[in-house]
Amino acid sequence: MCGVGTGPDDLQLTTVPTTSPQATIDQIIAFFRDQAGRELSAVGIGAFGPVDLHPESPTFGFITSTPKVGWQQYDLASTLYRALQVPIGFDTDVNAAAAGEARWGAGRGLPNFLYLTVGTGIGGGALVNGEVIHGLLHPEMGHIRIPHDLAADPFPGSCPYHKDCLEGLASGPAMQARWGKRAQELPADHPAWALEAHYLALGLATWVCTVSPERILLGGGVMQQASLFPMIRQELLRLLNGYIDAKPLLNEIDSYVAPPELGNRAGVLGAMVLAEHIYRNPSARIGAPLAGEDAWR
Amino acid sequence: MCGVGTGPDDLQLTTVPTTSPQATIDQIIAFFRDQAGRELSAVGIGAFGPVDLHPESPTFGFITSTPKVGWQQYDLASTLYRALQVPIGFDTDVNAAAAGEARWGAGRGLPNFLYLTVGTGIGGGALVNGEVIHGLLHPEMGHIRIPHDLAADPFPGSCPYHKDCLEGLASGPAMQARWGKRAQELPADHPAWALEAHYLALGLATWVCTVSPERILLGGGVMQQASLFPMIRQELLRLLNGYIDAKPLLNEIDSYVAPPELGNRAGVLGAMVLAEHIYRNPSARIGAPLAGEDAWR
Repeated sequence: MCGVGTGPDDLQLTTVPTTSPQATIDQIIAFFRDQAGRELSAVGIGAFGPVDLHPESPTFGFITSTPKVGWQQYDLASTLYRALQVPIGFDTDVNAAAAGEARWGAGRGLPNFLYLTVGTGIGGGALVNGEVIHGLLHPEMGHIRIPHDLAADPFPGSCPYHKDCLEGLASGPAMQARWGKRAQELPADHPAWALEAHYLALGLATWVCTVSPERILLGGGVMQQASLFPMIRQELLRLLNGYIDAKPLLNEIDSYVAPPELGNRAGVLGAMVLAEHIYRNPSARIGAPLAGEDAWR
Repeated sequence: MCGVGTGPDDLQLTTVPTTSPQATIDQIIAFFRDQAGRELSAVGIGAFGPVDLHPESPTFGFITSTPKVGWQQYDLASTLYRALQVPIGFDTDVNAAAAGEARWGAGRGLPNFLYLTVGTGIGGGALVNGEVIHGLLHPEMGHIRIPHDLAADPFPGSCPYHKDCLEGLASGPAMQARWGKRAQELPADHPAWALEAHYLALGLATWVCTVSPERILLGGGVMQQASLFPMIRQELLRLLNGYIDAKPLLNEIDSYVAPPELGNRAGVLGAMVLAEHIYRNPSARIGAPLAGEDAWR
């Protein structure tokens, strides 16, 4: 998904299918070049991962060890820079979405919150003290291990690396493999949803105890089943059992666990935040020096 | 544990047993008042929790819902302030220990690392982008849920809130309840240690995928069994299964999972960092205004 603009009000969107890197990038570049009357100041990328986010690394801006065919070790950020000649901001798709919700969505005014997407995979981005987490690599929250009762749910899990990590038990493809139907074809009263709520709540309980978010936003294709929200909230409270004694959690659970306000535009709007950030803070940029700068890194 | 000084080189320590609040605090105050020839500029507290860390809260500086008899809703920070009349910095014990290791120990130069203590409980503090996590409450990392194979380990877990959370399965008291012996009495070749390494590695794998630490420091009484370290390292790598493709983890695991350099002084030295911080950044302080300040918060 590509967008041009300055925020939610003037966002112009297009969608390009992710096929081979060459075909995909050609369409992306064409979209950005074809902005008649608009001048591009910077570009932000929220990429599927894993990616290299370390500005000092020789592979900064690359997609790294992804299972997606053809995209391994792909130099995404520099490729766009060479074509567009503007500064490039770069982060993971979920960090970008968190940045978008922080700026224009349900994370406004919250220095600490969690954004989780549950779809073809499970990914999480978190703001801690107002900044997204990078660290050693970047979060890969979908791959945490959770309790899995094989008697109640004999499905072995679908993650090629970890079998029954959270993503292996609760992503869209895991639901499809377990129940023989796509998630959107399962009716709201199907037992699949109570199990899904249980697994997701186990993840949320872990993250409440680890990054102490002030709010949790749940997006992605699987979360389009609206009946999941009340089940997840109830199960999260049951699992925490009163131990985390904080009013937003105990008394305001409906706003504590909520959908993102920007919907499926969170990522592309977040990428716009990354673009603005790199334009204003050029020290770690990918791109040419602005007038007055001595050199680009 | 109380200390006075400016850092590891001139630290003067004393230890006071934690009994009733009144008896305990009286001894703490006496220690700080009895510093002949040294002038106290500020005090830092790294407290057992849960605690209230929100400066705008009416119970800021309190111990809150602890199970420790007599300490519930105890106004720890203000009590010390009234007695000592210096600015008081306040955080959790594990956040303080992380701050100590960041300043003088094995976290030097690392903006992102995890400090975990495994003893009578399990607690974790993490630096993310150079700052400790507070958020909604503060991390309560010991209370994450992990896979628990009841066939291999029928012990139901000892946590009064969650039964078989990580703390309920792997704290010192959990080991004692499971094996009928205190951890320090179990020989290095006892099967208790492989199980302990498995549970702790499950926690570490979760945190690697969540806060992406550049290093993990493991301290506390249970970690005095040195044979735990190689078992935990090996088990962590097995659980992650190459998915987190980062050199410090894959190639330098002996320094990636390591003991704290400050040993059992990490907490008290970290409290000294909190004291210095509150002295230099008085906006959120508990204590009187410095000369030239208009008012205290």
